[in-house]
Amino acid sequence: MRRYFGRKAKMKIEIITIGDELLIGQIVDTNSAWMARELTEYGFEIVAITTVGDNAQMIEHALNIGFGRADVLLLTGGVGPTKDDITKNTLCRYFHTQLVFNEEVLNTIHAVFSHKNLDINELTRSQAFVPEGCTVIPNKVGTAPILWFERDGKILVSMPGVPFEMKTAMIEEIIPRLQQHFRAETYLKRSFLVSDISESALAIKLSDFEKELPKGLSLAYLPSFGIVRLRLWARGKEHAVLLQQQAEKLISILGDLLVAEGDAPLEELLGNALRKKRFTVSTAESCTGGYIAHRITSVAGASDYFKGSIVAYSNEVKSDLLHVAADVLEKHGAVSRPVVEQMASSVASLLETDCSIAVSGIAGPSGGTDEKPVGTVWICTRCNTAILSKLYYTGTIREENISRTANMGMLQLLKMLK
Amino acid sequence: MRRYFGRKAKMKIEIITIGDELLIGQIVDTNSAWMARELTEYGFEIVAITTVGDNAQMIEHALNIGFGRADVLLLTGGVGPTKDDITKNTLCRYFHTQLVFNEEVLNTIHAVFSHKNLDINELTRSQAFVPEGCTVIPNKVGTAPILWFERDGKILVSMPGVPFEMKTAMIEEIIPRLQQHFRAETYLKRSFLVSDISESALAIKLSDFEKELPKGLSLAYLPSFGIVRLRLWARGKEHAVLLQQQAEKLISILGDLLVAEGDAPLEELLGNALRKKRFTVSTAESCTGGYIAHRITSVAGASDYFKGSIVAYSNEVKSDLLHVAADVLEKHGAVSRPVVEQMASSVASLLETDCSIAVSGIAGPSGGTDEKPVGTVWICTRCNTAILSKLYYTGTIREENISRTANMGMLQLLKMLK
Repeated sequence: MRRYFGRKAKMKIEIITIGDELLIGQIVDTNSAWMARELTEYGFEIVAITTVGDNAQMIEHALNIGFGRADVLLLTGGVGPTKDDITKNTLCRYFHTQLVFNEEVLNTIHAVFSHKNLDINELTRSQAFVPEGCTVIPNKVGTAPILWFERDGKILVSMPGVPFEMKTAMIEEIIPRLQQHFRAETYLKRSFLVSDISESALAIKLSDFEKELPKGLSLAYLPSFGIVRLRLWARGKEHAVLLQQQAEKLISILGDLLVAEGDAPLEELLGNALRKKRFTVSTAESCTGGYIAHRITSVAGASDYFKGSIVAYSNEVKSDLLHVAADVLEKHGAVSRPVVEQMASSVASLLETDCSIAVSGIAGPSGGTDEKPVGTVWICTRCNTAILSKLYYTGTIREENISRTANMGMLQLLKMLK
Repeated sequence: MRRYFGRKAKMKIEIITIGDELLIGQIVDTNSAWMARELTEYGFEIVAITTVGDNAQMIEHALNIGFGRADVLLLTGGVGPTKDDITKNTLCRYFHTQLVFNEEVLNTIHAVFSHKNLDINELTRSQAFVPEGCTVIPNKVGTAPILWFERDGKILVSMPGVPFEMKTAMIEEIIPRLQQHFRAETYLKRSFLVSDISESALAIKLSDFEKELPKGLSLAYLPSFGIVRLRLWARGKEHAVLLQQQAEKLISILGDLLVAEGDAPLEELLGNALRKKRFTVSTAESCTGGYIAHRITSVAGASDYFKGSIVAYSNEVKSDLLHVAADVLEKHGAVSRPVVEQMASSVASLLETDCSIAVSGIAGPSGGTDEKPVGTVWICTRCNTAILSKLYYTGTIREENISRTANMGMLQLLKMLK
């Protein structure tokens, strides 16, 4: 029943995420960013992302607007087995069709459930009813099937909002099928991670470069917790040579401000640098409370270089486990150079690692003083016998201070490894 | 120049986030969820969230659609000092006005910068040019001013995309001003955190309850990493008594499945339970790599009960620091009951805490075996002499396994504390 229509360039996609929980802010929509990143890499252009609630009228309105500015609508959410999920019925009405029982979907659900040692209940069984006339793509890791509609040369795909199910469907089924239908225009980009400069100071430094950028090329700035990501980009393969020339020019202007090329997060850059030198690392954390260790271990394969961490949130733990002398704590305070230096040295020696990162700071909202306001952070990084200690002022809000301190800690060690 | 128009109920808001970085998935839009949560609490209704790029035509299109379904458009992003940010100029064209220099804005920028010991450069100074005829609200923590437009009884507010600047403006200026303009309809809700049951099994258990729900009340399900959040809600104060009655009925049906009422994250519930009993806690983490400690310390004031953590990612650290015997590791493997029990006991004794959480599992993607596939996790929680050890299968993807393990660990201890 599938109909192939003429391929065309500049295929435009709109992502529509559905769910009341998004509109009341109960959860953060991480699906859209993941989908946008994957689709962009494959050369598709995202023109908009829309979120609406579990409300038939608002969903239909969003579909009409979406079909007005995009060729493909990718819907996530509202397809669970519970009553508040209405996407499937809304699509039936929108496409003037009805629900029919699909044996194949029920078999897939059986397969998923037998794998998890669960029984199928009546609500789960209802997932096997699907709109007549659409292409049904089995969901290999969940119960809600993926529905693919074609109409007037445009496509609509409905998939679950559960991130793992959505990601599996996108990678294994939807992106390959979209590639079959459309010839996406190549998206070319070079990304650069820059540190030690503010966004506006960087923009002034690059103002001549931007003015002289050839037509079709663009430069974008993305500041994030003490670092700035630059993206030099263009659409269409014909810009490849120009992009390469301009990237080289940019690299030469950036000089020492350039930390690395690409979109890899700091923890991955640090991991690569450690692996290259066959160095191991540990962390001793106070104000970050284990967040640096978490960031490092969020990278698959981190056990190749990460051995562990001592989170010394209380001063007793700093003394007992990390051997920070009580008189040093008393004289200099927990947020001080001698304390982080002792922490870095002790953790490296206890965990027998080549490198270490130690941080101690005032995350806030309380605990600040006139002399050491909230946001004051000392960071010591060690690499064998080399030691570097620096004082930072990260900001005034707790969440930002923790994120910024983690970035600065990893960046400081990364620079030592260069 | 401000004009007050008639107040009306059912005020509808659309959030419009602007930035190419969102459409290519370079960053996750966390602003919208924060804004939606705050506005919902104040009784405002969010009808849609739209994301468009730094593209004048698409921004204007989104404004037209937004004004068609909402009374207020709240814009974030695209107001930085760099060339790729075009929101301000687009708004000038949209509202048929022009940029004029604003002395007061420059003074505010001076104040912000002197606080940070930075010099003002020419790009930053350009932020003091604002559209004529709009209300300019000073940005107390950044350089881009907040712009408030009124037109045909509707409102548009443009603010920075930097989360801290947006949040400060929303809380201190925008929400109070919106409250002055509109009488928002009260949003009533009761939230419940449920565990030990799947979403669909829970829905079957609650199917009669849902069928018998009085008109105007709704129930929504939000599953997340091994727990389910239920939200019973209504709009309008007149539903308060009914909501209370139905909430009581729901609580009685849920019985032991109910972990807690409210929207507080698990780490906050755990913190409150520890504080209430004046207990302290520590963690010994393998597969979660410090993530549980991070979650616990993301709560301000966690130092009242959290003392620290030993992240034992490598087996050496499990032996050397947490005294897990080498023969136990060899005989049972690192992911086993005796290993997590020793970890929980050692960390509580080393850090002198009343309680502890110890986890060891296979986060994946590699490291799984037939006997212990990826997602196999042992968790031991201790509370003084009481010990509870349980085996879990969390899933197949790394990120999910880490999040789910953290939830299960905190939940397991929380239940012991009850």
